[in-house]
Amino acid sequence: MIYQTLLLVIGLLILMSISSPSDASVDQAHDAKDSSVLSTRKSPHARIHPVPISSVRMMAGFWKPWMEANRTKGLPALLEQLEQHGVVDNFRRMSGRKAVERKGPYFSDSDLYKWMEGAAWAVASDEDAALESKLDAVIDDVAAAQRPDGYLNTFFVDDIEGQRFRNLSTEHELYCAGHLFQAAIAHYRATGKAALLKVAERFADYLVDHFGPGKIEQVDGHPEVEMALIELYRTTGRRSYLELAGFMISAQHFALRQQIGGHAVREGYIAAGAADYFAETGDEALHRALDVVWHDMSSGKVYITGGLGSRHGGEAVGNAYELPNERAYAETCAAISNAMWNFRMLGITGDGRYADMMERALYNGFLSGVSLDTAHWFYVNPLACWESYQRSAWFGCTCCPTNAVRMLASIPGYLYGTSDDGIWVHLYEDSQLEWCLSDGVKVLLTQETHYPWEGKVRLTVNPERDTEFSIHLRAPAWCSKLSVAVCGEKLSSEITNGYITISRKWKRGDNVELTMEMPVELMESDRRVAENRASAALQRGPLVYCLESTDNPGLSLRGVQISRTAKFEPRSGPELLGGVTVLAGVGTETPFEEGAPLYRPLGSLKSPEATQAQLTAIPYYAWANRGISQMEVWIPLAD
Amino acid sequence: MIYQTLLLVIGLLILMSISSPSDASVDQAHDAKDSSVLSTRKSPHARIHPVPISSVRMMAGFWKPWMEANRTKGLPALLEQLEQHGVVDNFRRMSGRKAVERKGPYFSDSDLYKWMEGAAWAVASDEDAALESKLDAVIDDVAAAQRPDGYLNTFFVDDIEGQRFRNLSTEHELYCAGHLFQAAIAHYRATGKAALLKVAERFADYLVDHFGPGKIEQVDGHPEVEMALIELYRTTGRRSYLELAGFMISAQHFALRQQIGGHAVREGYIAAGAADYFAETGDEALHRALDVVWHDMSSGKVYITGGLGSRHGGEAVGNAYELPNERAYAETCAAISNAMWNFRMLGITGDGRYADMMERALYNGFLSGVSLDTAHWFYVNPLACWESYQRSAWFGCTCCPTNAVRMLASIPGYLYGTSDDGIWVHLYEDSQLEWCLSDGVKVLLTQETHYPWEGKVRLTVNPERDTEFSIHLRAPAWCSKLSVAVCGEKLSSEITNGYITISRKWKRGDNVELTMEMPVELMESDRRVAENRASAALQRGPLVYCLESTDNPGLSLRGVQISRTAKFEPRSGPELLGGVTVLAGVGTETPFEEGAPLYRPLGSLKSPEATQAQLTAIPYYAWANRGISQMEVWIPLAD
Repeated sequence: MIYQTLLLVIGLLILMSISSPSDASVDQAHDAKDSSVLSTRKSPHARIHPVPISSVRMMAGFWKPWMEANRTKGLPALLEQLEQHGVVDNFRRMSGRKAVERKGPYFSDSDLYKWMEGAAWAVASDEDAALESKLDAVIDDVAAAQRPDGYLNTFFVDDIEGQRFRNLSTEHELYCAGHLFQAAIAHYRATGKAALLKVAERFADYLVDHFGPGKIEQVDGHPEVEMALIELYRTTGRRSYLELAGFMISAQHFALRQQIGGHAVREGYIAAGAADYFAETGDEALHRALDVVWHDMSSGKVYITGGLGSRHGGEAVGNAYELPNERAYAETCAAISNAMWNFRMLGITGDGRYADMMERALYNGFLSGVSLDTAHWFYVNPLACWESYQRSAWFGCTCCPTNAVRMLASIPGYLYGTSDDGIWVHLYEDSQLEWCLSDGVKVLLTQETHYPWEGKVRLTVNPERDTEFSIHLRAPAWCSKLSVAVCGEKLSSEITNGYITISRKWKRGDNVELTMEMPVELMESDRRVAENRASAALQRGPLVYCLESTDNPGLSLRGVQISRTAKFEPRSGPELLGGVTVLAGVGTETPFEEGAPLYRPLGSLKSPEATQAQLTAIPYYAWANRGISQMEVWIPLAD
Repeated sequence: MIYQTLLLVIGLLILMSISSPSDASVDQAHDAKDSSVLSTRKSPHARIHPVPISSVRMMAGFWKPWMEANRTKGLPALLEQLEQHGVVDNFRRMSGRKAVERKGPYFSDSDLYKWMEGAAWAVASDEDAALESKLDAVIDDVAAAQRPDGYLNTFFVDDIEGQRFRNLSTEHELYCAGHLFQAAIAHYRATGKAALLKVAERFADYLVDHFGPGKIEQVDGHPEVEMALIELYRTTGRRSYLELAGFMISAQHFALRQQIGGHAVREGYIAAGAADYFAETGDEALHRALDVVWHDMSSGKVYITGGLGSRHGGEAVGNAYELPNERAYAETCAAISNAMWNFRMLGITGDGRYADMMERALYNGFLSGVSLDTAHWFYVNPLACWESYQRSAWFGCTCCPTNAVRMLASIPGYLYGTSDDGIWVHLYEDSQLEWCLSDGVKVLLTQETHYPWEGKVRLTVNPERDTEFSIHLRAPAWCSKLSVAVCGEKLSSEITNGYITISRKWKRGDNVELTMEMPVELMESDRRVAENRASAALQRGPLVYCLESTDNPGLSLRGVQISRTAKFEPRSGPELLGGVTVLAGVGTETPFEEGAPLYRPLGSLKSPEATQAQLTAIPYYAWANRGISQMEVWIPLAD
């Protein structure tokens, strides 16, 4: 009873804050942990709302070992790198704590902020006093560097202190600010501590004072701050942050967009910001532009891995169907931005095709950027490799590693969603969700699954008391055959917009069994993708596979072909690459004609005899973990 | 008798100058016109030597209209552009003749020099008092700008006058110098006037004083001066120029090269310079490197058009088999540098494969860079075009137009070669060669042909008197069946290194009929070229063809396929595109599935019905002359 009263009061408080967002400071408005990637405050124009990271418990699933490695190895190793490269010292220098030279590119602050966000989400999931204390120390250094007026950027000091915002198109002060805000929000939600959030608010207030119509009307060349400002609005209730984000999105003419083009990461971020803004405001012009741009991206400008960026030049999305494999750029950050954008599209629409794209990006194009030990990274994620290419612990522009640690730590936030009528399961993962339904009933939802290695998912539903609500189960687009049973009884599982909705009065111990057939598929692409013509990629469930030379010794990988009817079988490899299911099949290897001319009349060469070749494919994300190798995703088809 | 005595004296003079290259000034050593692209002075380690442009008369052949347009429209229009963009004024400013701001990139001098070289070769072929007087005026402006110590570069004046050679890797003073030398040589050979050659010599002497071991030991980031210095040595006899070129080639470690890589134009130029150096010195290490690099280029890094450069980033050659079509860079200058390099390889080896590559580059990848009116240009020459792309009259970096005008004007120099035993015919073209054999007998060789539209060539040989010598006829690699008849008598035409040698005592009126079968070929490429997999290109004779939407109205070009056994027929189109032979054939058009996913299980979509499509292909070089269009060289093959 006390519990219910408390909930009612909280509910009323939330309602009040939505109807009249106050400009009250953080301390007054929030004094409880709310560790979500996005706020659980219900955005009025969203159909699905996120859940806090702290409400999700990751069990023995696919992502848990990655998160564990990230928390215990990746994050500490990356902080050491940031220290070694002077990124933290830049802040100490600014506050006078350390007399050193400024080091790194002008946007290096953002790298520390992203690390901080990652560390915050990591401690939201798992207690880690050592990591938290490192984070607190870094926060102290950051806070001490803030200027009295709220401005904070370690590049603009000394001689150029007065030249703030002198070159927004390339010097990325607002991009850095955005990452500061996101780190602050994460820290606040993860720990309840408001120290960094206050720093963020002061800087955001400074931006509100300086940017907007009649003030500085330019925007940052690298979008990012839009999402961050809207999240800061959701966190603090200060509407001026939302308005500033709206001004920035409008200044970039997003609503007039007809296509995706240019820098891939920026394109994902601005679209994510626009989706956030729609969620708060219901701006229909933005929604239309989001639809058009998303269609342009998904129909011809995204890799099968969910990676974005076909050109090294400008780190850019290419023309339609311009999707080279060996020369793919597919920056790790771009797969992250694609996932973030699609998560928001899923939120505002409830349409599973966005969950499909998000899943594709997370399990493939994002994860390929991370080594198994979470301490070595790809910036560029090619889909074929014929010359030597390896992961690095650091890059001169090290945006990808720092982005990856925050994405790994925030995975729990992407699994579930909620709406007034119940709970959404977006990603299948061995995990638990503890949630309080809109009628106030607490429910514990347990997912048991070996996804993505197997297509079986068992949900156990434990409401505090019997209550009616809906569970929306995602029916992934990759799955052409699935079945659902509720408490052993088969359901005619109608799929609407990529989800199966099960509405009933649930009682303790009720269970749902979802069985997704997960055959190995030979995938083709639109024939306008020139490099994939007469080739097929192996896919099973959400995972794209590749042939890596390491698993196919003695073969000249480039001479391998498979038939259109090739059958590949999944084989569990618990000892391999942290535990993966490999695909085994048969193809052919045809040697190359030595000294043959590059161009010759069609069919004029007698082809060398093809020989049978046993092939082993591994998940694309796991390649390049065992030294120099060759690799390909798209395998030529034999005539 | 007087004539023969004169020849003997000239012969002795040449022998003397070869055995002991003097440092005598130009005026003393040369007082006759010698209008060759390369000197006719016999390089001791070359097997074939070039002929002067003035010894070749272009008749009603393929190249004549291009040269005519170039002389009457292209060169005058480009000079106007150079004037408008301040490139000539930069020189007038330097000499104090005009008080203007310096304009254009730091290497803009080279653009004027290339124009001057083109104008000089143009007046070598055809009298044109107006053009020659424009050229003389420009030369006067250039000469007046030279510094008292011989240095000449309009970028390094005023504040930075003292900072010569401060940044050789990017500021291209030596590259500009090289183009000055080549313009000077061309002008001297074309007109016998030595004014510009003196300017060149003074600058070259300045370079000799400042560069080399113990002096400045760096070299220009953009090779070009190497070829130019060696040609200046050939023209003046000053061995110090050859030595300086040798130092520069050595400083670039060319002899250690294992592959072609990096900036495509530079790669062709340094290789051409190295081949020139071999021709003079017989440096075997250079020859080995040239072989290795050429093999690397020709076996996997060159387009079917002879174009070089797979990457927009760095204007660079890519990895092996990295040859994207829509995103080809294939800079016009790179096709020129490829042709220049191969012409020199042909000279030092006598091997027809280099003539094949040169021909490929000239008729396709180079000529595609020039509009039919020779006043609009491509910098980048894609092999497929799905989005709008058009020619320009000028570029911020306008290297290609100025390079193209000099190449067009110097075409006559590429048709023939000579050796002690006679005459070489490299390129088939309606033309006449007037030559003096090594035994002193003058011979007039007349080529009658409609090449490249027809494969029949009739040579009429008119020696001053009966004499024995060899005619080496090129047997192009594209031709699998040819026959030769001498005075109506069929010859068993043995091909050695790509040439058929006919040695006999020739008398006035003897003729040779070469008949090359010229079927339409469907070409394939090595299957490692991912974008060309399951595609074919149309080729007939030396010409690569393309489908341009303009000639195929009502078709969705991207949906067109042809069968592996498709037959295309040549059809003469005298009114079309300046007079071309088109190829007509039948293919299919398969519409694209609206809204189909970019990636899907292989064969899961029911393909829309294919319909028969009448197709017309035009020579690749002629595309983009009739407004915005789509285009492709590599046509997908139907299953």
